[in-house]
Amino acid sequence: MSGSTFGSIFRITTWGESHGPGIGVVIDGCPAGVPVSENDIQNYLDRRKPGQSKYTTKRNESDSVEILSGVFEGKTTGTPISLLVRNQDQRSRDYGSIASMFRPGHADYPFTEKYGFRDYRGGGRSSGRETIGRVAGGAVASLLLKELGIRVMAYTKSIGPFTVSEKDYHMSEIFENPLYMPENTVAEQAGEYIASLMAEKDSCGGVIECIAEGLPAGLGEPVFDKLDALLAHAVMSIGSVKGVEIGDGFAAASSRGSVNNDPFYAQNGVIHKQTNHSGGTLGGMSDGSRLVLRAAVKPTASIARTQQTVNTAGENTEIEVLGRHDPVIVPRAVVVVEAMTALTLADLLLRNMSAQLDHVKKIYTPVPEV
Amino acid sequence: MSGSTFGSIFRITTWGESHGPGIGVVIDGCPAGVPVSENDIQNYLDRRKPGQSKYTTKRNESDSVEILSGVFEGKTTGTPISLLVRNQDQRSRDYGSIASMFRPGHADYPFTEKYGFRDYRGGGRSSGRETIGRVAGGAVASLLLKELGIRVMAYTKSIGPFTVSEKDYHMSEIFENPLYMPENTVAEQAGEYIASLMAEKDSCGGVIECIAEGLPAGLGEPVFDKLDALLAHAVMSIGSVKGVEIGDGFAAASSRGSVNNDPFYAQNGVIHKQTNHSGGTLGGMSDGSRLVLRAAVKPTASIARTQQTVNTAGENTEIEVLGRHDPVIVPRAVVVVEAMTALTLADLLLRNMSAQLDHVKKIYTPVPEV
Amino acid sequence: MSGSTFGSIFRITTWGESHGPGIGVVIDGCPAGVPVSENDIQNYLDRRKPGQSKYTTKRNESDSVEILSGVFEGKTTGTPISLLVRNQDQRSRDYGSIASMFRPGHADYPFTEKYGFRDYRGGGRSSGRETIGRVAGGAVASLLLKELGIRVMAYTKSIGPFTVSEKDYHMSEIFENPLYMPENTVAEQAGEYIASLMAEKDSCGGVIECIAEGLPAGLGEPVFDKLDALLAHAVMSIGSVKGVEIGDGFAAASSRGSVNNDPFYAQNGVIHKQTNHSGGTLGGMSDGSRLVLRAAVKPTASIARTQQTVNTAGENTEIEVLGRHDPVIVPRAVVVVEAMTALTLADLLLRNMSAQLDHVKKIYTPVPEV
Amino acid sequence: MSGSTFGSIFRITTWGESHGPGIGVVIDGCPAGVPVSENDIQNYLDRRKPGQSKYTTKRNESDSVEILSGVFEGKTTGTPISLLVRNQDQRSRDYGSIASMFRPGHADYPFTEKYGFRDYRGGGRSSGRETIGRVAGGAVASLLLKELGIRVMAYTKSIGPFTVSEKDYHMSEIFENPLYMPENTVAEQAGEYIASLMAEKDSCGGVIECIAEGLPAGLGEPVFDKLDALLAHAVMSIGSVKGVEIGDGFAAASSRGSVNNDPFYAQNGVIHKQTNHSGGTLGGMSDGSRLVLRAAVKPTASIARTQQTVNTAGENTEIEVLGRHDPVIVPRAVVVVEAMTALTLADLLLRNMSAQLDHVKKIYTPVPEV
Repeated sequence: MSGSTFGSIFRITTWGESHGPGIGVVIDGCPAGVPVSENDIQNYLDRRKPGQSKYTTKRNESDSVEILSGVFEGKTTGTPISLLVRNQDQRSRDYGSIASMFRPGHADYPFTEKYGFRDYRGGGRSSGRETIGRVAGGAVASLLLKELGIRVMAYTKSIGPFTVSEKDYHMSEIFENPLYMPENTVAEQAGEYIASLMAEKDSCGGVIECIAEGLPAGLGEPVFDKLDALLAHAVMSIGSVKGVEIGDGFAAASSRGSVNNDPFYAQNGVIHKQTNHSGGTLGGMSDGSRLVLRAAVKPTASIARTQQTVNTAGENTEIEVLGRHDPVIVPRAVVVVEAMTALTLADLLLRNMSAQLDHVKKIYTPVPEV
Repeated sequence: MSGSTFGSIFRITTWGESHGPGIGVVIDGCPAGVPVSENDIQNYLDRRKPGQSKYTTKRNESDSVEILSGVFEGKTTGTPISLLVRNQDQRSRDYGSIASMFRPGHADYPFTEKYGFRDYRGGGRSSGRETIGRVAGGAVASLLLKELGIRVMAYTKSIGPFTVSEKDYHMSEIFENPLYMPENTVAEQAGEYIASLMAEKDSCGGVIECIAEGLPAGLGEPVFDKLDALLAHAVMSIGSVKGVEIGDGFAAASSRGSVNNDPFYAQNGVIHKQTNHSGGTLGGMSDGSRLVLRAAVKPTASIARTQQTVNTAGENTEIEVLGRHDPVIVPRAVVVVEAMTALTLADLLLRNMSAQLDHVKKIYTPVPEV
Repeated sequence: MSGSTFGSIFRITTWGESHGPGIGVVIDGCPAGVPVSENDIQNYLDRRKPGQSKYTTKRNESDSVEILSGVFEGKTTGTPISLLVRNQDQRSRDYGSIASMFRPGHADYPFTEKYGFRDYRGGGRSSGRETIGRVAGGAVASLLLKELGIRVMAYTKSIGPFTVSEKDYHMSEIFENPLYMPENTVAEQAGEYIASLMAEKDSCGGVIECIAEGLPAGLGEPVFDKLDALLAHAVMSIGSVKGVEIGDGFAAASSRGSVNNDPFYAQNGVIHKQTNHSGGTLGGMSDGSRLVLRAAVKPTASIARTQQTVNTAGENTEIEVLGRHDPVIVPRAVVVVEAMTALTLADLLLRNMSAQLDHVKKIYTPVPEV
Repeated sequence: MSGSTFGSIFRITTWGESHGPGIGVVIDGCPAGVPVSENDIQNYLDRRKPGQSKYTTKRNESDSVEILSGVFEGKTTGTPISLLVRNQDQRSRDYGSIASMFRPGHADYPFTEKYGFRDYRGGGRSSGRETIGRVAGGAVASLLLKELGIRVMAYTKSIGPFTVSEKDYHMSEIFENPLYMPENTVAEQAGEYIASLMAEKDSCGGVIECIAEGLPAGLGEPVFDKLDALLAHAVMSIGSVKGVEIGDGFAAASSRGSVNNDPFYAQNGVIHKQTNHSGGTLGGMSDGSRLVLRAAVKPTASIARTQQTVNTAGENTEIEVLGRHDPVIVPRAVVVVEAMTALTLADLLLRNMSAQLDHVKKIYTPVPEV
């Protein structure tokens, strides 16, 4: 109810603050028998680790994960998987000056209103470090999906005004540039743009796209827990995300039915769609096509420029948010979007198992009456 | 788990198919003492009822609601409120021809894959009539919000390419045109556009905007159940919605921190924001400003034009979706977006009650130890 | 959260008061393809219907069920199944005299404290009629279990001091006497005892036992949602039940490990237990033996004798609870215990489906990477 | 869904195995502002720690707790509280001989059936060490209850056949004997009984009673989540508990309405009951009287005597469960029952906050319409 848990069957519960002893996640409901190692999870965490490029905060964290339970002889046991990452570079002195002010664009003010006070040593629970638990959980979800032949991949579609059009996608270039864009030239231009913003003590946002392939048709529940709805929930729950769309998304609103409908056709007994304006969902369920979603990420709220604000005594004042901040969080948020998508899909796959009596009978061979 | 329930404390469970005996909703968790009448709920249902204008289906339904439980002497009792709307104009003969084909843009194909078969008499559970339960539930949520001084209002921002800019909003005009747009002239142009599409056996979509005023700061849970995330879940769970954004939404992705951050200021001891790019949320919690969200609605999938598709035997074929369909569902979906927003806010208000020990003590005066 | 929903995957939400228009249940999460008819459900409801024998209230209700959704051509569709039973014999005048007093042994006083007021026309939501929704839901759960070769059966073990020992059980006699006891002679003695209590304006309770056969081993979740724990929750949630035990239950507390442990043995490759002190569960999971549970039912609280109490103005007074009341509710509660057991087992069977990766792979044949 | 989470608003998620790196719990939904220290929690853990008396296992564990998140300057912050206890004395060699056999009375067999394999190094997730997370969580719940003037206390009512009658209770003696019985003489006799069982390589069980005082009337939800039902769920989820009763419990089944009903009376404007056969609940809600529940604990399954069993190859064999085992787990389970009761009450207190509109308005002063 306090919202630190995500998922119904495959579910994660995250905990931890930016300046406490550590950050972690408990994964419950992962089927027994999935191969998982600390190294597998570390690979995902390294993609969001700070200090990877000149565009990310210099906060010094190794973000090393320890598996505390739920894995035995290299496989999940079906019991809760507890993962721990100790905080190292807490340096709370950096944050002292902001303890008594509400930073614009941050959670400080509503957090104080909600709880009566706040841990003033940094973002606390609203820090980006909270996403460590999500990524660690998403790594395990991805390992389960892999066993079922499902692949999830996120990348940066745009940084500020610099966008890669779908026709220019070179997926192989995603890991060749520090912004995780599928086109190196645009990435270079975006990099220069970020550098200029840093010089101006400013920041920018961008758009992250995520695709999933290999999904069977029928995932997602037809009413409130549509595939679209749970993905929107998952992705919009990432700090700084202010918009989510599936397939053509907002562009569909100005299209026509004759264009936006994707005609079906059959080939060798398999049903396909001629186009994929729907982004892989129909009626809130996967339709067998590639899943496509996009998340709009707002500009980093922490900027060193002078901003007007109010202090905790309710007086008007000015603030400069110093310290080690990313001028754009998009590159580090890519793996978070991928993780949240993987978690959503893993959960819906397990939820869908009992949709048909025939599937139930595949697991339980009825015992004949004696 | 099958996703017919929405909400945690204030929760609704909907049921019913387009061609069954009726549609309904059970509302559980509404506090005792809220004034509710059948007439109050009917007013909301009438806003989504078919046949209200030339732009909506001619299906003949009175959509009269009956309160079956949970209300006594005009007030909620704290027990589940069961609401029933009988279907009248079922005319299943209209749908016979589509029983054996998968309609493009519809749930038919994934529904069959998920459950092994489907109720072929119409949209079934995926029909727009399913939203009756949402609107009835949202009506009760709105009555609760009203008691707390909170107002929610949705309207049509755009129809196809016809958009009303925020600077042109005349809120008083929303109920003056059949499209519920906040500007009558644009509504008239949009109406002509819809008429031309009808002549071409085509359809269009649009954008619905919803605002909420009077919210205290601090609603929403800081991690997975952010106000933004639950609103995205709620609104994206409405059939045909393919995108959701809060505040500046996708536009924020190409903005700068120095522009997108909303500076705080204090006036007469109250904290305000100079701008509202955030759309009323910070860190996933309400920030005391007006809540602003938008939903992108895709064009109606049912069009009378010939479309390519596949039948249930897996053969390529053609289909014309005849029958009584809205050329654009946006006007009727306005109240559905409003309902889902109201449900989300009602639930988060109740969830937030226990955030502080001081609030808990307001309800339970500690009994002194004997 | 208001507790009108039971179950995680196979879940029911009940609604309705004794003196409102009706009582009902929404079943969500039942797999598609289970054969269900109104007649099937009615058979279960008839077992708890009033007026079946001289030991039950004369309230005149046909308790006819209507299926409002979720069943198509005789099979469940996977969508919510809404069931409605209209109240007929409401006779609220009977209850007028108790509107202003708190009946001893009833929910009146805490209900008023909880909600601020109550529907004073009878038991309201706390009436035994609330169990109609449970029994209707349990009927559908039982039909699912039957498809999997699982049989659940409840009966009366004792009425007041009259108990049938396990060695005297004649299961075939259960439906031969109005008390549903597995031994007709004891049932006759118990019947005379009830008659004598009726003459004294008094009432009694009893013990209901429920068994389930055909369960695979491994149902139940090892920590908080043990099979034992969910059964205890389910059965203790029935009004008037004040105790629950599994297997030897309270008798185990005074036994010894060397006696209470059930030794395993293998026969023809199948693992059995030599005894069943555990009542079919080990470590909170089914162990492949017969499940055995018992519920202690308190004496009917409504008695016509003069009792001391307090009125809603807080003054001491006396009350005689007149009207049509069962001198013992045990016989009518038998099917309720059976229903709650069936609901619990159906839910745990579906929850258990995703415990192993091998089971997940049985449903989703991995798509080979392209 | 995998059942490692308990509670709705105040909820705990536990993790950890007996032979992994550690055991822990995440507490989510605790209101901000509750004073909590590691010392407070340690006091509860020390009550279940092994090696406290001659009747408990000699496994050498300090069970020292570390607070990893959610507490700042001595108070809860409203965010998840993560607690970690490292395992020290893992000595997995002790358990090697039982890796290939199913121990009678243990979870080994159904665990293997459920998950396909098991962590054979000990009880794994089904070990009694799992209760460390419950006790740590219950400690925090108890600290919240204390702030509201509510006291929960558990003690041993019986060991094997040795029972303390209510008329002989001396609450001050509970902490004077190693069995936590409210009468030292009976405790001494019970101690001798345990010693004789140890000599015979046998074990015994007992009954734990738990009371709560200071509860307001109206806690508990009237249908499925009755106070009785959630307590039964909570307590029956503790390993080895096979029965639960509230108030007179099973004795009520053979009583009469005229005896079992507790008459109300008013004194100085406060409503009381003349007796408390109900154990503090009516209609599933607290009635303002003392809450009384009892749990039946089976004899310890691990006994050194030779027992017949089956190995993992499905062959008949014999087993002697050597190692360090409690001859009776009752004394160490006392604090676990107390913890589960406290967790249930804390959750129901928070759930009950929104039962009345008047209570909601106490938290949210309506904002007047502008």
